[in-house]
Amino acid sequence: MGESEEKNQRWRSLRIVLPDAMASESGGVAYLFLHRPSRSNALNPDIFQELPLAIAALDSNPNVRVIVLQGSGKHFCAGIDLGTLANADHVSNAIGRHKEQFARSVKQMQAAFTAFEECRKPVIAAIHGACLGAGVDMITACDLRYCTKEALFSVKEVDLAITADLGTLQRLPGIVGYGHAIDLALTGRTFNGSEAKTIGLVQEVFASKQELDDKVGILAHEMATKSPLSVMGIKSVLLKSRDLTVAQGLDYVRTWSTAFLHSEDLEEVVKARAEKRKPVFSKL
Amino acid sequence: MGESEEKNQRWRSLRIVLPDAMASESGGVAYLFLHRPSRSNALNPDIFQELPLAIAALDSNPNVRVIVLQGSGKHFCAGIDLGTLANADHVSNAIGRHKEQFARSVKQMQAAFTAFEECRKPVIAAIHGACLGAGVDMITACDLRYCTKEALFSVKEVDLAITADLGTLQRLPGIVGYGHAIDLALTGRTFNGSEAKTIGLVQEVFASKQELDDKVGILAHEMATKSPLSVMGIKSVLLKSRDLTVAQGLDYVRTWSTAFLHSEDLEEVVKARAEKRKPVFSKL
Amino acid sequence: MGESEEKNQRWRSLRIVLPDAMASESGGVAYLFLHRPSRSNALNPDIFQELPLAIAALDSNPNVRVIVLQGSGKHFCAGIDLGTLANADHVSNAIGRHKEQFARSVKQMQAAFTAFEECRKPVIAAIHGACLGAGVDMITACDLRYCTKEALFSVKEVDLAITADLGTLQRLPGIVGYGHAIDLALTGRTFNGSEAKTIGLVQEVFASKQELDDKVGILAHEMATKSPLSVMGIKSVLLKSRDLTVAQGLDYVRTWSTAFLHSEDLEEVVKARAEKRKPVFSKL
Amino acid sequence: MGESEEKNQRWRSLRIVLPDAMASESGGVAYLFLHRPSRSNALNPDIFQELPLAIAALDSNPNVRVIVLQGSGKHFCAGIDLGTLANADHVSNAIGRHKEQFARSVKQMQAAFTAFEECRKPVIAAIHGACLGAGVDMITACDLRYCTKEALFSVKEVDLAITADLGTLQRLPGIVGYGHAIDLALTGRTFNGSEAKTIGLVQEVFASKQELDDKVGILAHEMATKSPLSVMGIKSVLLKSRDLTVAQGLDYVRTWSTAFLHSEDLEEVVKARAEKRKPVFSKL
Amino acid sequence: MGESEEKNQRWRSLRIVLPDAMASESGGVAYLFLHRPSRSNALNPDIFQELPLAIAALDSNPNVRVIVLQGSGKHFCAGIDLGTLANADHVSNAIGRHKEQFARSVKQMQAAFTAFEECRKPVIAAIHGACLGAGVDMITACDLRYCTKEALFSVKEVDLAITADLGTLQRLPGIVGYGHAIDLALTGRTFNGSEAKTIGLVQEVFASKQELDDKVGILAHEMATKSPLSVMGIKSVLLKSRDLTVAQGLDYVRTWSTAFLHSEDLEEVVKARAEKRKPVFSKL
Amino acid sequence: MGESEEKNQRWRSLRIVLPDAMASESGGVAYLFLHRPSRSNALNPDIFQELPLAIAALDSNPNVRVIVLQGSGKHFCAGIDLGTLANADHVSNAIGRHKEQFARSVKQMQAAFTAFEECRKPVIAAIHGACLGAGVDMITACDLRYCTKEALFSVKEVDLAITADLGTLQRLPGIVGYGHAIDLALTGRTFNGSEAKTIGLVQEVFASKQELDDKVGILAHEMATKSPLSVMGIKSVLLKSRDLTVAQGLDYVRTWSTAFLHSEDLEEVVKARAEKRKPVFSKL
Repeated sequence: MGESEEKNQRWRSLRIVLPDAMASESGGVAYLFLHRPSRSNALNPDIFQELPLAIAALDSNPNVRVIVLQGSGKHFCAGIDLGTLANADHVSNAIGRHKEQFARSVKQMQAAFTAFEECRKPVIAAIHGACLGAGVDMITACDLRYCTKEALFSVKEVDLAITADLGTLQRLPGIVGYGHAIDLALTGRTFNGSEAKTIGLVQEVFASKQELDDKVGILAHEMATKSPLSVMGIKSVLLKSRDLTVAQGLDYVRTWSTAFLHSEDLEEVVKARAEKRKPVFSKL
Repeated sequence: MGESEEKNQRWRSLRIVLPDAMASESGGVAYLFLHRPSRSNALNPDIFQELPLAIAALDSNPNVRVIVLQGSGKHFCAGIDLGTLANADHVSNAIGRHKEQFARSVKQMQAAFTAFEECRKPVIAAIHGACLGAGVDMITACDLRYCTKEALFSVKEVDLAITADLGTLQRLPGIVGYGHAIDLALTGRTFNGSEAKTIGLVQEVFASKQELDDKVGILAHEMATKSPLSVMGIKSVLLKSRDLTVAQGLDYVRTWSTAFLHSEDLEEVVKARAEKRKPVFSKL
Repeated sequence: MGESEEKNQRWRSLRIVLPDAMASESGGVAYLFLHRPSRSNALNPDIFQELPLAIAALDSNPNVRVIVLQGSGKHFCAGIDLGTLANADHVSNAIGRHKEQFARSVKQMQAAFTAFEECRKPVIAAIHGACLGAGVDMITACDLRYCTKEALFSVKEVDLAITADLGTLQRLPGIVGYGHAIDLALTGRTFNGSEAKTIGLVQEVFASKQELDDKVGILAHEMATKSPLSVMGIKSVLLKSRDLTVAQGLDYVRTWSTAFLHSEDLEEVVKARAEKRKPVFSKL
Repeated sequence: MGESEEKNQRWRSLRIVLPDAMASESGGVAYLFLHRPSRSNALNPDIFQELPLAIAALDSNPNVRVIVLQGSGKHFCAGIDLGTLANADHVSNAIGRHKEQFARSVKQMQAAFTAFEECRKPVIAAIHGACLGAGVDMITACDLRYCTKEALFSVKEVDLAITADLGTLQRLPGIVGYGHAIDLALTGRTFNGSEAKTIGLVQEVFASKQELDDKVGILAHEMATKSPLSVMGIKSVLLKSRDLTVAQGLDYVRTWSTAFLHSEDLEEVVKARAEKRKPVFSKL
Repeated sequence: MGESEEKNQRWRSLRIVLPDAMASESGGVAYLFLHRPSRSNALNPDIFQELPLAIAALDSNPNVRVIVLQGSGKHFCAGIDLGTLANADHVSNAIGRHKEQFARSVKQMQAAFTAFEECRKPVIAAIHGACLGAGVDMITACDLRYCTKEALFSVKEVDLAITADLGTLQRLPGIVGYGHAIDLALTGRTFNGSEAKTIGLVQEVFASKQELDDKVGILAHEMATKSPLSVMGIKSVLLKSRDLTVAQGLDYVRTWSTAFLHSEDLEEVVKARAEKRKPVFSKL
Repeated sequence: MGESEEKNQRWRSLRIVLPDAMASESGGVAYLFLHRPSRSNALNPDIFQELPLAIAALDSNPNVRVIVLQGSGKHFCAGIDLGTLANADHVSNAIGRHKEQFARSVKQMQAAFTAFEECRKPVIAAIHGACLGAGVDMITACDLRYCTKEALFSVKEVDLAITADLGTLQRLPGIVGYGHAIDLALTGRTFNGSEAKTIGLVQEVFASKQELDDKVGILAHEMATKSPLSVMGIKSVLLKSRDLTVAQGLDYVRTWSTAFLHSEDLEEVVKARAEKRKPVFSKL
């Protein structure tokens, strides 16, 4: 395989496959699995606690250049675990301090998904099976999304009589437009991979899980051969510019280029072109 | 029908069909008609004055859960009435106080459409025939849009030598993207329901007015069975987040959930699940 | 032709064809060519210096109502010229004052593209052949985009190990959504005119360069018959509203209409309608 | 007096003294009194309901050019009435729909104060005695503030174990800076008119209620002689610009001037200067 | 003392004195000392690493209600340690990856100060002696500032030929206005406690270190008797509203109140008022 | 003097005294005079045209490090010239194209003042005599303001029945707070140098014109000895951060520092400290 599995005893509900630092062909791609297959990878407190730690570990691991997010088993993610919802029920007549505890726990869950955006390295979600509720919140915080034709999506919070509060209502409109976003959020209707592609939620849809894995793997390895500085810069500037006026975004990227345009990676590009070979970039 | 018509003598240029409070099958869906069929529902001062009152009445009517906006007769809306335009001509060499009166009248017209966004309940526009000029401003302020295949749209203000000032230039880009928005606004070209669907202006396009009415009716009744608190929350948070950074939007929705997540509707969902039945939610 | 070529000795790397002020059929359409065909119109310091001057000249020329941007020769634009990149290499161990010079030169280049937005008149990009790197930054600052089926696009900065800093990361997401924008920017992959149409980057795709030129010419001449005040207002309000909340955008357009709705162009529309003829608008 | 008292039977908890339309010396100044002197003008549901109606009436009354807001009796305003607070207590274990009712009632109360900002005419608060809690929220929404030396202020919500939610936390920092704002809000400490002047909360402090009334009257009458269009424009542009970038604010005011600079009031100024007399402006 | 010192072996460059959980008179006030007295509490990597940990510990410690930040020894803080500056010098001809490391270290330092804002509990800076450079960045992130008459402040980065990058340029203008902020930042001039009070940088200035400690202690203990929920809400809403329009801020605080207004603390206030005693609030 | 006067035949309504490039004691301070003393330096079209050219020339002149803005003769600036106002009168019944010309001329005038902010080098306004109307717009765009005790200020547009449209309403509130800003703008009242100091409009007030010139000269020369890179960075980051959230401002300054912190100026500071001498910085 050229890839070595991380000591996964560290994680209760995730599984991580790291690239083999020695084998060049493993290409710097790390696989991060939601790993509660018997529960369709429903998101429980463990996952919300472990996700930011895992992402931070991958971000600071110099062997990792690209992260692929997947679900173990038959589904990508069934949304919030029922147990977590039950907890919410416990605070039924909560006021004051209990409300404040609730708000803090939502903040922690939001931060777990925002961690994908704060990670310097690109995160590719490869979705098969169900991707429901908080699963949609999660993938909107990833950089790229690919899925199988039969993948099933639903912004299903409306059917739990609650409001999606982990990012879908903030990030989905920028991806699919406001018309599709409110349609999906108000109806909670299920839609498949083909519609996800049509509305722009995913970049590409594949006929099978196998093809999804193969193609995403190729894409991820290709991306891992690119300049890590450039990839980091593009991701960061694009996300920062989202919340700036165009003029402010131009100021920001100009300052970014002033700091980073000249780099060892640009030198490598120039040298490689002169030598008519592919450039090879060192780790970040 | 299961539906009772409101005492429509109250309205000069609108018609409202309220759900029958007694008949459960009327499902809480109110129909709001632009009702000047002989003028293709062109928007006159009456409509601009009555619209916010009608919307407020529907918003505060506990029997109403979803509003369907339609046009009486052969068209949805032919845009601003020529008479209103003629008035604008009267102020031809207006300065100062007359300008100020003009600005106030535009403010009132803008507010008439913004009322759709401020209404807590979802508003579905069902469009057939022509939807021109200010008609487009109006539907961009609705939550969902459906139309017939032959529906005709045009951001036609450019051909009146004026600038759309009732919301199209602010809301359309978020729905169809900036490329389509400026194309439609600069050319004023007419496009049909199929193109409206392709660019994302409407959610779905139907073969006939009958099918449009049937399918929108089904969809509206389905939406009316959902938790009114959740529906209100999704609409409100999505619209507020449109004008916030993602980080600010996450703060906002977290506070919203802290206030509203635990509710009698969530309790009903939990109970209904235990009892393996559909939840039934009380009025807002 | 009905069109007269500007004394193009003024420009080193651009070519401008002005409408013939006398011949009504030339319709107020100016053609602005990137004119370094032997270098595939790669952007060199000359172009960046001349572009804002050329745009300003066209903006203030009353005979010009619409600007069509094209590339001379076989391609639209190959991106930044290698020589310019080489210069960046010269500043390899630059600090302080050299960094500041670099930042100022990027600022000037950014301003050259922003000039398309600040021009009161609409700018239509007609793209054939390659449109790479900074070429994409450039067209995202234009108002409308059309291309040939075989046109090739690439946000290729990632393959130079740099970050696009001339507007793509700020303007592309509003046109094609965040999903497509980050996909194109991170992969640097080449895509053709058909995909450009599918994702909304261009308004229309044509089978050949000839058809592109014909159809864009027709469209531009049609647009040039519209009210210059209205066209200017629509462009300006749409761009300003992009960076405002919806409520602020409504305030802005209301004030705009108060200043400009009543105009000689509106009077002409009213008169032409009474006389059942096409309105004819005077120059801006 | 030259002033006629409005038929105040209309109002339960306010009192309005309108300028005498006939007597030129009454100068267009309307006095709006919080009028529950036996309760120190504590804000009850009546006041929150009547305030926006009263302000709208004064706004649309052409005889009124300036509004002076005062408290009847010994104090300006003691804050929210205890009864209203008791109501809040009733909703102690409220969830869902009751929460939503609460939110709507806060929205109505916020709107009652925001009405001061939306009024086209300047509002001057003349404060004596106590100005506590929601009284501070109220005056921060006024345009100008004057008080007596012995006036007592307190952002006292912290001592009710709640959070000021009617505007103080949004508007006070812009008036006194963030350091003073958080100090006053976190400590709830009482401060007098002299400190209010030092930190910039009031424009001027006077030795007695009599002097306050006299000087504010003079100032209000003076302001009422100025161009109503100019006064409206200054207030409106300043408030709109508060929430815009400087560049956006310059765009906005430029469009405003294009609409309004030339006016009958400017013509009157030019004429009056030629005739060496004070200009006299007609009603708005 | 009624206060117990935390096992301070945990910290290398800070010292923390926690309130005695048993002794009610210790009032929930924690003292956080910058503790490198021999280096005038110059900020070294240790402090930047320990500060956010210390603040998080105090934030989650239920015995702590208010935090007082002080400097051990003769000064509050001499700014960035020379050693840290020397490190910056090491990266003199750094490009690319070294630049990126530098950016990350600045991000960590910025986060160390932003932690004061993210702490739910109020932070009071009590300043004596010198408060220079990054020391000013630090105190602008605190909620309240008090100092001695002889305290010396300087935004001295200009004299190191660098730009303050830890928050002064972002937070100071909101506290003292843009005029004072740019004056202090461009001149780097030293100013004393009295001027700090005049321009609003500190709330109060005291004659001696002893008086400073006494008065800040009294104030902190007084603040610690207030409702922790209310104090947290005021701090949070004020800071969030800083970056929102007024309308957005009103939305936010309304939702906050809907979630939190009714609380056990409000109930305690009502009960205490009925029983004519001071309310006593439980821990957060 | 050590200063040489620029060939001032170039300017019709300005006068510029450049520092003597040879004489080190002239310290890089350029003096820019509004130079229509017989008209109290009233702003005419010439000045608005020349100002941005003059500022650009000073900005790009490496001998200039600091700019002092003054008025020739007895006053700083009497505001817009009556002739310019008369022109506005000419467009009395202007519509459409004439309105558009007006808007462009206001845009040019706004840009003339914004040029002070866009200049990389600090601009100090030294004000004596009258500073009225557009004079106030102008100084709010400068970085630092000093004046004589007898200087007289007035935001006097209200007395011309117009609205200040050159920046006062956008920039003044950030300097003096919203209370003072609206007071000054609505009343148009005259205030002297002492009050200007009290409210924070000027940094310092001096007893005489002579003292003003002396002290501002000393301050400017002192500022000219500081690192030009640092001074430019502080000015730029402060102005950019004004329109960003605090989090965005921290992102921006971090990227700025990454680009610019390490510089030849920082190296010079380190060397000078080692050599126990004042650092000397090269030109920008």
